[in-house]
Amino acid sequence: MTDLPTILDFAALRALYAAGTTPAEVMTAVADRMETADPAAFIAKRSRADILADAAALLARAPEPNGLPLWGLPFAVKDNIDVEGLPTTAGCPDYAHEPTADATVVKRLREAGAILIGKTNLDQFATGLNGTRSPYGAPRCVFDASYVSGGSSSGSAVVVAAGVAAFSLGTDTAGSGRVPAAFNNIVGIKPSPGRVSTTGVVPACRSIDVVTVFAASVADGMAARRIAEGFDPADVYARRFADEALPQTLRIGVPGEDEREFYGNGAYHALYEAAIARARALGATIVPFDYRPFREAAALLYEGPWVAERLAAIEPFLDERPDSLDPTVRQIIEGGRTMTAADAFRGAYRLEALRREAEAEWAKVDCLMLPTSPDIQKVEAMLADPIALNARFGRFTNFANFFGCAAIAVPAGFTGERLPFGVQLVARRDTDEALGPFAAALHEAARCGAGIDRQFAPPAVHKPANQNISNQMHGAQGSAASCGRIEIAVVGAHLTGMALNHELTDRDARFERAGKTAPDYRLYALDTVPPKPGLVREPGFGGPGIAIEVWSLDPSSFATFVDGIPAPLGIGKLTLDDGTSLAGFICEPVGIADAREITAFEGWKNYLASRKTAL
Amino acid sequence: MTDLPTILDFAALRALYAAGTTPAEVMTAVADRMETADPAAFIAKRSRADILADAAALLARAPEPNGLPLWGLPFAVKDNIDVEGLPTTAGCPDYAHEPTADATVVKRLREAGAILIGKTNLDQFATGLNGTRSPYGAPRCVFDASYVSGGSSSGSAVVVAAGVAAFSLGTDTAGSGRVPAAFNNIVGIKPSPGRVSTTGVVPACRSIDVVTVFAASVADGMAARRIAEGFDPADVYARRFADEALPQTLRIGVPGEDEREFYGNGAYHALYEAAIARARALGATIVPFDYRPFREAAALLYEGPWVAERLAAIEPFLDERPDSLDPTVRQIIEGGRTMTAADAFRGAYRLEALRREAEAEWAKVDCLMLPTSPDIQKVEAMLADPIALNARFGRFTNFANFFGCAAIAVPAGFTGERLPFGVQLVARRDTDEALGPFAAALHEAARCGAGIDRQFAPPAVHKPANQNISNQMHGAQGSAASCGRIEIAVVGAHLTGMALNHELTDRDARFERAGKTAPDYRLYALDTVPPKPGLVREPGFGGPGIAIEVWSLDPSSFATFVDGIPAPLGIGKLTLDDGTSLAGFICEPVGIADAREITAFEGWKNYLASRKTAL
Repeated sequence: MTDLPTILDFAALRALYAAGTTPAEVMTAVADRMETADPAAFIAKRSRADILADAAALLARAPEPNGLPLWGLPFAVKDNIDVEGLPTTAGCPDYAHEPTADATVVKRLREAGAILIGKTNLDQFATGLNGTRSPYGAPRCVFDASYVSGGSSSGSAVVVAAGVAAFSLGTDTAGSGRVPAAFNNIVGIKPSPGRVSTTGVVPACRSIDVVTVFAASVADGMAARRIAEGFDPADVYARRFADEALPQTLRIGVPGEDEREFYGNGAYHALYEAAIARARALGATIVPFDYRPFREAAALLYEGPWVAERLAAIEPFLDERPDSLDPTVRQIIEGGRTMTAADAFRGAYRLEALRREAEAEWAKVDCLMLPTSPDIQKVEAMLADPIALNARFGRFTNFANFFGCAAIAVPAGFTGERLPFGVQLVARRDTDEALGPFAAALHEAARCGAGIDRQFAPPAVHKPANQNISNQMHGAQGSAASCGRIEIAVVGAHLTGMALNHELTDRDARFERAGKTAPDYRLYALDTVPPKPGLVREPGFGGPGIAIEVWSLDPSSFATFVDGIPAPLGIGKLTLDDGTSLAGFICEPVGIADAREITAFEGWKNYLASRKTAL
Repeated sequence: MTDLPTILDFAALRALYAAGTTPAEVMTAVADRMETADPAAFIAKRSRADILADAAALLARAPEPNGLPLWGLPFAVKDNIDVEGLPTTAGCPDYAHEPTADATVVKRLREAGAILIGKTNLDQFATGLNGTRSPYGAPRCVFDASYVSGGSSSGSAVVVAAGVAAFSLGTDTAGSGRVPAAFNNIVGIKPSPGRVSTTGVVPACRSIDVVTVFAASVADGMAARRIAEGFDPADVYARRFADEALPQTLRIGVPGEDEREFYGNGAYHALYEAAIARARALGATIVPFDYRPFREAAALLYEGPWVAERLAAIEPFLDERPDSLDPTVRQIIEGGRTMTAADAFRGAYRLEALRREAEAEWAKVDCLMLPTSPDIQKVEAMLADPIALNARFGRFTNFANFFGCAAIAVPAGFTGERLPFGVQLVARRDTDEALGPFAAALHEAARCGAGIDRQFAPPAVHKPANQNISNQMHGAQGSAASCGRIEIAVVGAHLTGMALNHELTDRDARFERAGKTAPDYRLYALDTVPPKPGLVREPGFGGPGIAIEVWSLDPSSFATFVDGIPAPLGIGKLTLDDGTSLAGFICEPVGIADAREITAFEGWKNYLASRKTAL
């Protein structure tokens, strides 16, 4: 019998496969775990035979172990996402339909080698953040069965946290892909709206619904997200997108004291403060910001006309079979009936105004670090007060899809009562990749493992190395979508602290590293204002190498930077002492005609320092 | 007494001013014309004394004739746009309010030296395309008073067409800034939504309302638009924008035969076909496209939930004083009452789906050339059938703001009954500048003058010369918004027909012109594969000059082009024989160490040709 790790992180499973364990062996052990998992977690389990058939088919299709990006990784799908051959219930048995095809996102994951184990429970019609609003029962927090699992993607979070699936799909309109991650000590990856297709997903608020990934680590969740995402012409809200960068040192926004609302949950409050301290220790700059416009936008989701969007999604069904709904869900969605089209437009204006107000806050920070949920509740309390307590959970999540944000929720420690707490990093559209390294570091620094494995050490996520126009353009067209950054070696007045360094920093250029040229360069002091050096390569010359700095710019900024360089300088290719070649300053022959050679100083700064000394 | 030109084009007025005519003299003559203009054109005329006071204030503020961009140009403003000191009626006397400030767009124009003469009539609440829906009377087509002027910006079009104002402001939701231009033989500039502030404008459909400009020529209208536009943080639908380019040779989309609906107006149909022929003669490539998704989107404006947006704009007033409305306008806007918020969301989904369908058509073309209105009607007929006949006028205009388009409507000839016809160029967001040259050429080619001056010769609009990152970035932030194109001089393998020319064309680079360098350049044949030349400047050297080609690239493409150039070449600054300097190929000294000088060939192509001959 195969010994599975406690929690099914990708690296551990891949190691098993690399060591010769077969998909059939892993999936047999997974099927065993499915039998003992929280019975409320699944709405439909695939049979052992079906799962093993998929394992066999995978071997036939891709015999090499780990030969596909998600080779042999078991995953589960929230039951508002279509899987061919299984009914889609959206948590409402009478609503069930039999899809004739996998949802686009499921199809992509299966093609990448992932093996589907079943459909998971949810707050009915994805309306809720707590996990109790389902006739299929309430999945429980994996650490204390008296507590809610969070929702609406309740079952998907529980099966990952319990080590039954390596990853799972949720959906997130208000926070359903993040809150259950927090309540079960796992990672919730919420892509920017429009990156992952919603074709084949039962809508909640169709204009802002997002398919999400739960996993043990940021690295795993991002790996699945990369497969899941991609422009889908059949999804009218799909976008062609390109990844946006974030700076090396993050300015992380945290709400001012007056907005740190934890509803009396002092343990969560303390854990949030500890998370801020960890973020600071990891090198981030902590910046208080005004959460008000975000909070007011968040409130629109259930207090504004977007409730009617939930109604629009199921109106004929609700008209015909109102008693088929969970009473709380019905009460919420019926609330949309009183809203007029004029109300809908007024709500849209209000949202636009709040988006504009929030711009002033975004200008201060690169990303936000917020509690994923400021509170957790027992199932019993939640059932007694289902709407008000649920609203608490969404206080810091509801705005994100309205504002087009990417978000990653990570574990952030445990209370004295051994209940997990989580924080989320939230940043502007298409920072999905850029948020990864810090989110992973924050998870690791919390030292609280993943799911039920409190010892699990989450892997780091590295910044995309040397992007150099390497960022994939996911269907984005033309020049408007910015590509990756371009590195450039500077040697003189553009060095840190020098007269023209602002020409880089004004363009949001990023310092990457210091270094020196190959030995066959000579340096000259040109007769320019301000003083500048000229770098001249002479094959065969064995000099000391010249000090340079490597900066990176996005292409548009690189273009204007290059276009602004006066003669006799220009941008060509420099060779560094490690043999690499990159864009850098070169000099026309005319520039050095009467110039003084200063190679011996090994760099412009040394030369300038020597002149000061001399004076 | 000052002899004003028949129609007040900017060049004619500036010539008067340059020759010594004073603003007071011009404005006195304008005030005379105001007295004899169509009495229904104005809702409020400013007094002669107020206008002359403004003329005097202008002289005090900017004594130099033509010393401001719109110095001394008389303009009128549609009466749904605030002007301090005049009531804003929106065509509904009981709705009138006294604004305490100019609308942002009016303020900008006045600061640029334009002199306001009055507020103009409109279809009430800008709801209509015909000009008869106003208690202030129906302005008439300036060519035949039995015909409608078009609307809703009826008065604004008439005062420009009649030579009373040099330009005027309209608004355009369905086509109100274009249809009246067509019916009065003038130009209507409809900016892309979000470029011109709507702060201080009575909303029609607030999410897609656009402030527009009427003028005698494309050049004049664009000049006023440039002043009018700019990011306004107080307008929640304002955008930070940057101009988008269009290719040298336009692919112009025209509807397939089955979508050329003219409602039996054979004269208009024939004039449209003639306009297509002119466009072709001007060098455009005519491409039939499927108008269906555009037509279906257009229909949503009055058949979908956007009617409720008109309701949202005036609901409390309508509730309180329903009898204050024009009966037709009231009937239309009351139609929004039956629409639910769920309907509004379903309408939004439908629009998104049509936008996606239209993408396939946009892929075939650079811009569309459509009839501005496929029909014109007599006032009497319009009053008898006010909704159905009005709907005809919007058949080809209603989609444009839904799709974020820029549009320019230009005169396109007269019917045998001496009624004017117009066509519009419509293209993607922020092609407002790029559409100008062809729109102006199309207007000129129609040889139908402007307004009542059938002999007026509209000036050309030149492509922005040597943009060189000169395009203003109107509040656009960072790299996402692309800037203007960057010009680069190429000298060797990148010339047209040479081995590496594809590195330009693959990047959608545009050939701008051929030329040669200043005389102080020498050319060398480098030892590279493929063969390349090196250009070396030597001050004082008196050579023949070296042949170059100037190409332009958008910044991202320029960046990757530069980053891809191998040593010993690079991009610095070249000086041309006309003394201008621009980005171009330079060469490191090492490159020419053993290279053969080929300056005498005056260029790389000549040199290569000589070698072929020699072989």
